[in-house]
Amino acid sequence: MTYQQIVEQIRKKKSYLCVGLDTEMQKIPKFLRNAEYPLYEFNRQIIDTTQAYAVAFKPNIAFYETLGAAGWMSLEMTIRYIRENYPQVFIIADAKRGDIGNTSRMYAAAFLEHLDADAITVAPYMGHDSVAPFLEPASKWVILLALTSNSGSADFQHAELKPGRKLYEEVIVQSLTWADHQKMMYVVGATQAEWIRSIRKIIPQHFLLVPGVGAQGGSLKDVSEAGLNKNCGLLVNSARNIIYADGTERFAQAAGEAAAALQKEMEGYLRSFGIL
Amino acid sequence: MTYQQIVEQIRKKKSYLCVGLDTEMQKIPKFLRNAEYPLYEFNRQIIDTTQAYAVAFKPNIAFYETLGAAGWMSLEMTIRYIRENYPQVFIIADAKRGDIGNTSRMYAAAFLEHLDADAITVAPYMGHDSVAPFLEPASKWVILLALTSNSGSADFQHAELKPGRKLYEEVIVQSLTWADHQKMMYVVGATQAEWIRSIRKIIPQHFLLVPGVGAQGGSLKDVSEAGLNKNCGLLVNSARNIIYADGTERFAQAAGEAAAALQKEMEGYLRSFGIL
Repeated sequence: MTYQQIVEQIRKKKSYLCVGLDTEMQKIPKFLRNAEYPLYEFNRQIIDTTQAYAVAFKPNIAFYETLGAAGWMSLEMTIRYIRENYPQVFIIADAKRGDIGNTSRMYAAAFLEHLDADAITVAPYMGHDSVAPFLEPASKWVILLALTSNSGSADFQHAELKPGRKLYEEVIVQSLTWADHQKMMYVVGATQAEWIRSIRKIIPQHFLLVPGVGAQGGSLKDVSEAGLNKNCGLLVNSARNIIYADGTERFAQAAGEAAAALQKEMEGYLRSFGIL
Repeated sequence: MTYQQIVEQIRKKKSYLCVGLDTEMQKIPKFLRNAEYPLYEFNRQIIDTTQAYAVAFKPNIAFYETLGAAGWMSLEMTIRYIRENYPQVFIIADAKRGDIGNTSRMYAAAFLEHLDADAITVAPYMGHDSVAPFLEPASKWVILLALTSNSGSADFQHAELKPGRKLYEEVIVQSLTWADHQKMMYVVGATQAEWIRSIRKIIPQHFLLVPGVGAQGGSLKDVSEAGLNKNCGLLVNSARNIIYADGTERFAQAAGEAAAALQKEMEGYLRSFGIL
């Protein structure tokens, strides 16, 4: 999917919502747990009711891997379901991979070719040659971890480097030589809007994938004011607040309502920033 | 598995060899490729012929994941095969995971509980709360990325922080407050023995998992002289040079011979350092 196609979807749906498919056996409604592929059954219904309000879905790979081969089947079926029914939606494999070149190449094949996601989240610690293989498949995206939303982000990401930059800023600056805004996005946590504002000065054009709104405490309003650019430039993720909005047979309908409420709020910001 | 049990295995087998199961469909002998689980069939035979010379096996998860659910089946079967037949062997899931707490907890369950590996490699970029869930399961290990063997290790791991430490040193120093040498090891690449020597000054007791000997250019002699401590303290990984030593029906026998040669060399270093 191209940068322009993503922007078109955002304008069409008046939304920059990404629905996080952090699907967990213990949290899905009880009546679904006896299905052959319970995570897939849950996802399929969530996707149907939320896709009108969301431009992206982001399965969190850990939640599938924890069920082994059966979990992988649910993941494969989920991505295939989105591809076949909603081909315009952007699919992010939230995998946070990164290894030496020949190993990253295997992960790239797993997520961007076999699973056919549009994007994969990648950890930067091992440097350029650990990220490069993910940049090779055409029309696919790397979403590089820059500043995450967890408390441990303070441990190393905020470390001050001798040139006077923080590590997360160094990651962004160096990686600008690896690919441009048509091939790379950045994970930037929602917990401090001022950091989003300072990152926007380094990368005005790039899309930022912003987790941490809602359950983790970030405010959609603050994030939007700090991060929106003329093409929107944001994908804001919400998982638990949408997919677990209701634990009964109404779960999918309630998820759709929660997604619609976020879309409505986003539409307001898109209008006040002149993007719509 | 405890620190002491690992040391006992090293003394008994006179070896600190870890066999990397970087098993790839395109590289295994042709006659195995039509099996239902070709990677498992290959691994099973490699394990049988090398286990006498190796204290650890390290499946590289990317190589299995790239085949999707079928690859996961091969991975599960491989680990079960080692557990059932060679219960004293240390099993490392080379996964390089790391995410926010609730997600790392899922990965910990996937690798340390369901797959029942003894250890998992973890990336430090997201800080303490991204690593902590991997430290929870009893008798299991975290092997934290410190200094890797690829060219990209120069990009961020060697960045100079203001306190006068490099990032990889800061990762080691901070993580010493998270767990001790009975629960944590470090990945330290073999490409520069002088770095292993300087890391040994910070962590004299810890085990180091050393990739990059052989195919990636590191020397076993240099690594051993720089890294051995009184309990050995090294697990040196070799993958391609062992498992692909021969591409014919002799592949497993050739792998055993390659592992035996490395064991012999290691025995020499263990003796000259007074560990045997």
